[in-house]
Amino acid sequence: MRPYNFSAGPAMLPVEVLEQVREELIDWNRSGASVMEVSHRGAEFMRLAAQAEQDVRELLGVGADYEVLFMQGGASAQFALVPLNLTAPGSRVDYIDSGYWSKKAIAEARRYLDVRIAAATDGTRVPAQDEIDLDRRASYVHYTPNETIGGVEFPYVPATGSVPLVADFSSSILSRPLDVSRFALIYAGAQKNLGPAGLTLVIVKKALLGRARPETPSVFDYRRIAEERSLLNTPPTFAWYVAARVLQWLKKHGGLEAMAQRNEAKAGALYAALDASALFKSHVAPASRSCMNVVFSTGSAEIDAAFIEAAAAQGLMHLKGHRAVGGMRASLYNAMPLEGVHALVEFMREFERVRA
Amino acid sequence: MRPYNFSAGPAMLPVEVLEQVREELIDWNRSGASVMEVSHRGAEFMRLAAQAEQDVRELLGVGADYEVLFMQGGASAQFALVPLNLTAPGSRVDYIDSGYWSKKAIAEARRYLDVRIAAATDGTRVPAQDEIDLDRRASYVHYTPNETIGGVEFPYVPATGSVPLVADFSSSILSRPLDVSRFALIYAGAQKNLGPAGLTLVIVKKALLGRARPETPSVFDYRRIAEERSLLNTPPTFAWYVAARVLQWLKKHGGLEAMAQRNEAKAGALYAALDASALFKSHVAPASRSCMNVVFSTGSAEIDAAFIEAAAAQGLMHLKGHRAVGGMRASLYNAMPLEGVHALVEFMREFERVRA
Repeated sequence: MRPYNFSAGPAMLPVEVLEQVREELIDWNRSGASVMEVSHRGAEFMRLAAQAEQDVRELLGVGADYEVLFMQGGASAQFALVPLNLTAPGSRVDYIDSGYWSKKAIAEARRYLDVRIAAATDGTRVPAQDEIDLDRRASYVHYTPNETIGGVEFPYVPATGSVPLVADFSSSILSRPLDVSRFALIYAGAQKNLGPAGLTLVIVKKALLGRARPETPSVFDYRRIAEERSLLNTPPTFAWYVAARVLQWLKKHGGLEAMAQRNEAKAGALYAALDASALFKSHVAPASRSCMNVVFSTGSAEIDAAFIEAAAAQGLMHLKGHRAVGGMRASLYNAMPLEGVHALVEFMREFERVRA
Repeated sequence: MRPYNFSAGPAMLPVEVLEQVREELIDWNRSGASVMEVSHRGAEFMRLAAQAEQDVRELLGVGADYEVLFMQGGASAQFALVPLNLTAPGSRVDYIDSGYWSKKAIAEARRYLDVRIAAATDGTRVPAQDEIDLDRRASYVHYTPNETIGGVEFPYVPATGSVPLVADFSSSILSRPLDVSRFALIYAGAQKNLGPAGLTLVIVKKALLGRARPETPSVFDYRRIAEERSLLNTPPTFAWYVAARVLQWLKKHGGLEAMAQRNEAKAGALYAALDASALFKSHVAPASRSCMNVVFSTGSAEIDAAFIEAAAAQGLMHLKGHRAVGGMRASLYNAMPLEGVHALVEFMREFERVRA
């Protein structure tokens, strides 16, 4: 049996997709070449690229008033590229601080903007809507719907009135249906729910294009990328291809409604086990619990380490928490089957029973 | 038999490497996971990353006074990132214009710098050393050692005295030995001689780090990338992994001396056939002929198209020239075997004979 991989990212991919990739690795589409070896401007690759865009639009219900871009640089590049593309220097913006990754986004944004914190928490919960203090003249409000490290997730999309909403969806994109029309801009590194590292998805309202600061590198100017259908310069073709396969897999397996059900069942089973355990605890406020990254611990670094090691020996891999919070973290992205969570829960019970 | 792929990039990879990638696609290093599915901060991946850097250093003889960086964004991103990282706004720099890609680099650099053209040609040859008019106070001199589209290549490294030399080596890196100590900075998109698209190699003198303009996105600041061994943010792990395999392949097959011999034999055979042909012609000045991209035509767009189609039917793929110059282009990167060139030459002779 293949081990279950709970890595926070780069993360597990559907084995069905990996098998397909392996099958056609050396001869893609009967072209006699690997998809890695063909031009991004060839008809075959452009068809794949267009289909991937179409599938993102279909799965997420992206309106015609949005561009769907495939970029390089990861979400961390977007921390700078969002300010560079959307604002003039010194503009006022609001950021919500819900943990590690929002803080990273804030630190980078401060290099370009007058950043105000509209809400902040201690990282064990997300702020409630009525805790968010909005500046109605902000150029945008930024938040991180799911914090991969703290394991907190917004159970709602913040209402921001007329202020454009920008979100780093790296760790929860495509995990459930989303009302894209609530957002001005969504960005996401691919390496959790979409595909391999090296590809970044950006969904941006067309009305916001054309405002890039003059110092923005041309290849990172959203308007220019949109004009060239993300083929402005050589894109990360292989990562894009794998993402295209993942998107097809999502459609084949019921789309985002089905993913949401599966993901809730997976996280529900693990949180229920944590709530029932005398050894393992989640420190995240129940209403803020992440469906994607379940963070927990025994309260003892020594027992945590013993658990992680014993779990790995049973094929339950990469459960070590991020060094910033310690303990354990089980990432349950779309590709993780329910059986993986059941295996983990069973092993936790056994580990606890033996120690008792 | 696998077709011969003459694509200019993304280009042919060694089939030996592709077979290895396929073999371990689903279970890498007996980890039970694909290399796409593991953390870039795990011990296994970090070992691979360090080995790849070591192999670049060994193959190219990179001194300890240089950093070797693995980045995202391609050479086109470097067109902006070089000015952003090395210069203050308005600095004077010299660029050599030898064709399509140098012009692209120049256009982007003008957005950041006072660019002077130190030499320019019509694209069918490179300038000779004594045609290069250097500004001794320039912050750097930039050139494009091989022009993928025009098919011209510098047979020498320009002498620039005390002015730092910067080069876009995208299409000829690792094709022959190189005296890196002559350069301040070398950059190269991976997708010709190094690996899949989505990875960019940057070799930069340590003394030049720490000068990034304040508006440089943090993840594109050479100094910060160097400090974090190119793991500042999630790197394109799969592309890096394939590049690591290609570097091992290069070492196994004799390193850059052996590649240079093979590449000269390949290009030599094709240029000899062109010189002997009454139908096919190279319009590149003999001393400037590229070893990597052999551009030729019959002078008739109709015959060119018939040739390209007939060649493809024989398994000689992607010979169509770039739309900017038309005709044919045979790209002969490291992964192209001599047999591929022999097959092409034989087919050209047969095509010419039948038409005569």
